[in-house]
Amino acid sequence: MSLAELIPSYLHWVEAEMRALLTAPTAASQGHYAIMQYHMGWLGPDLKPTQAPAGKRVRPLLCLLACAAAGGDPGQAAPAAAGLELLHNFSLLHDDIEDASPTRRGRATAWILFGMPKACNAGDGMFSLAHMAFYRLLDRGMREELVLAALKRFSAMCVHLTEGQYLDMSFEQRTDVSVDEYFEMIAGKTGALLAVASEIGALLANAPAATVAAYHRFGAALGRAFQLRDDILGIWGNEEVTGKSAASDILSKKKSLPVLYGLTDSRVGPELRARYAGPSFTAADVPAVLALLDIAGARDYVQEQVRIASAEARRALAEVAATAVAAPHAALAELLDALIEREQ
Amino acid sequence: MSLAELIPSYLHWVEAEMRALLTAPTAASQGHYAIMQYHMGWLGPDLKPTQAPAGKRVRPLLCLLACAAAGGDPGQAAPAAAGLELLHNFSLLHDDIEDASPTRRGRATAWILFGMPKACNAGDGMFSLAHMAFYRLLDRGMREELVLAALKRFSAMCVHLTEGQYLDMSFEQRTDVSVDEYFEMIAGKTGALLAVASEIGALLANAPAATVAAYHRFGAALGRAFQLRDDILGIWGNEEVTGKSAASDILSKKKSLPVLYGLTDSRVGPELRARYAGPSFTAADVPAVLALLDIAGARDYVQEQVRIASAEARRALAEVAATAVAAPHAALAELLDALIEREQ
Repeated sequence: MSLAELIPSYLHWVEAEMRALLTAPTAASQGHYAIMQYHMGWLGPDLKPTQAPAGKRVRPLLCLLACAAAGGDPGQAAPAAAGLELLHNFSLLHDDIEDASPTRRGRATAWILFGMPKACNAGDGMFSLAHMAFYRLLDRGMREELVLAALKRFSAMCVHLTEGQYLDMSFEQRTDVSVDEYFEMIAGKTGALLAVASEIGALLANAPAATVAAYHRFGAALGRAFQLRDDILGIWGNEEVTGKSAASDILSKKKSLPVLYGLTDSRVGPELRARYAGPSFTAADVPAVLALLDIAGARDYVQEQVRIASAEARRALAEVAATAVAAPHAALAELLDALIEREQ
Repeated sequence: MSLAELIPSYLHWVEAEMRALLTAPTAASQGHYAIMQYHMGWLGPDLKPTQAPAGKRVRPLLCLLACAAAGGDPGQAAPAAAGLELLHNFSLLHDDIEDASPTRRGRATAWILFGMPKACNAGDGMFSLAHMAFYRLLDRGMREELVLAALKRFSAMCVHLTEGQYLDMSFEQRTDVSVDEYFEMIAGKTGALLAVASEIGALLANAPAATVAAYHRFGAALGRAFQLRDDILGIWGNEEVTGKSAASDILSKKKSLPVLYGLTDSRVGPELRARYAGPSFTAADVPAVLALLDIAGARDYVQEQVRIASAEARRALAEVAATAVAAPHAALAELLDALIEREQ
């Protein structure tokens, strides 16, 4: 079965798990869960059921493919995959508050609609429910020691995620962020969750420690490649495909890798630094900034970093090829390719 | 050993665990952990070490006393007690953001000092680290199945806590909150954490299920009594002892139980409702509101509820008396008395 053939049933399981977890236990708490359900795209602003565009569900897919590739039963691991996706969505809910973002995927963000206090608390609820997902593995007959080992990695990842978010926020106030610091930031903010998604999949398949570690490396490298591709699309993406305004990361002065690379370039660095230290950008500033990044060769540099990260991911995948189940193993490689070549 | 004799060593263990957990793993994440350390009172606003007044540490004390009373080794359970205290502090950090509170225990709140975005994220970090605390039980030789059972109750409590916080926030916008709804709210916002602190203590002592359930009931009833005493102090407390302004809960129009009871009184309800629906209170409004609560007999009613809750807690404690270790069992009764008679 190819990736495209596996996706529908995998996503069906994950969706069912998430909906079971995000069900209000009492009438009084209905409003609390409605905020989470709105954020997930299941309810409209009128709190009536809807089907708003969801995310790519990369994390649960990665987890279930890794589980299947490592010889496990992905149906049994579905609660963990749901926990990973809920954790991702919790982080988006709080990110929207912390970044004061008014919209996400073309809809008002939760804090705009329900107010910051209740949205922040709904994020905490979703954070807690993401952990609750893992205990559902026990109902599927998963052994206690495996569930505990998965949870331990999950909690450590949550800590790492907040460290990455801290770095990302602190970068906004600086113009001297190094490329090394950038890689440390994305390892926490994006890489940790993808690494642990892949790792937990293999772990729940009861794979040997060395295999589990290889899946972790695969996820971490895939996460790096994924984020770097995001950085490229944030500047050079086609706005009709991405759904965001063209060069949105330039307009918001985001310190993504292309910009950090440009800032270190001896030819364009000084001018770029002066522009980034100055007043907010308008659309009129974009061409000049793009021209500076072009001189620095920023796009080629980041594209080369995507190549390096994806080669690392492929090496990790090759390490486990001998013992892996062929179809999901091939689907993992397909997933990697799809992510680094994606246009949105 | 009495409660006063047990407290110093218990608190010493818990403090050491919390400090180990709240240590930055990298130089780059130092600023993230500094926010948490400031919130805990370990750092001053200048980020230099200090010893600001800490909380009462009721939750870890309750956990370790229950563990000892149920025949366990409280030293072995110290990481769980630290996790409970960190979770409590996480909830205070986010509550301060959600309530826009400028001060806590006489110091600027974390969000005032570090900004809302970083403080919110530091709360998420502390939430994650509270979970990490439990894996440290494994290093102390605690069995995996007990750690997993403790974590499962811990996560479920976190969900319940956010439901209670949601109810509390939604009450602010209503004048028709019933007494039943109030008890549902405090069961989540205050009771759940105290119930689980007591329960986890007994669980980690490997006590039988019926005993663990009795400790849960003890903590839940103690939590109710504790919150009701808080409601009394918030209106009739001595400001020189509480450190808060006199009648602070009246000035902030908090829907605590005395007020909800007054609102249901046929004699004073209509006038009280009109006042609470009107403009903000100043100190000049306080005497009239106090007089209305007096006519309704609100203080006596709440005091009677404290008595009912503490009698329930004592019954739960009596149930386990036959098998309990005498000194910590007596200390639990002492803790209950101290909490319901406290003046701050």
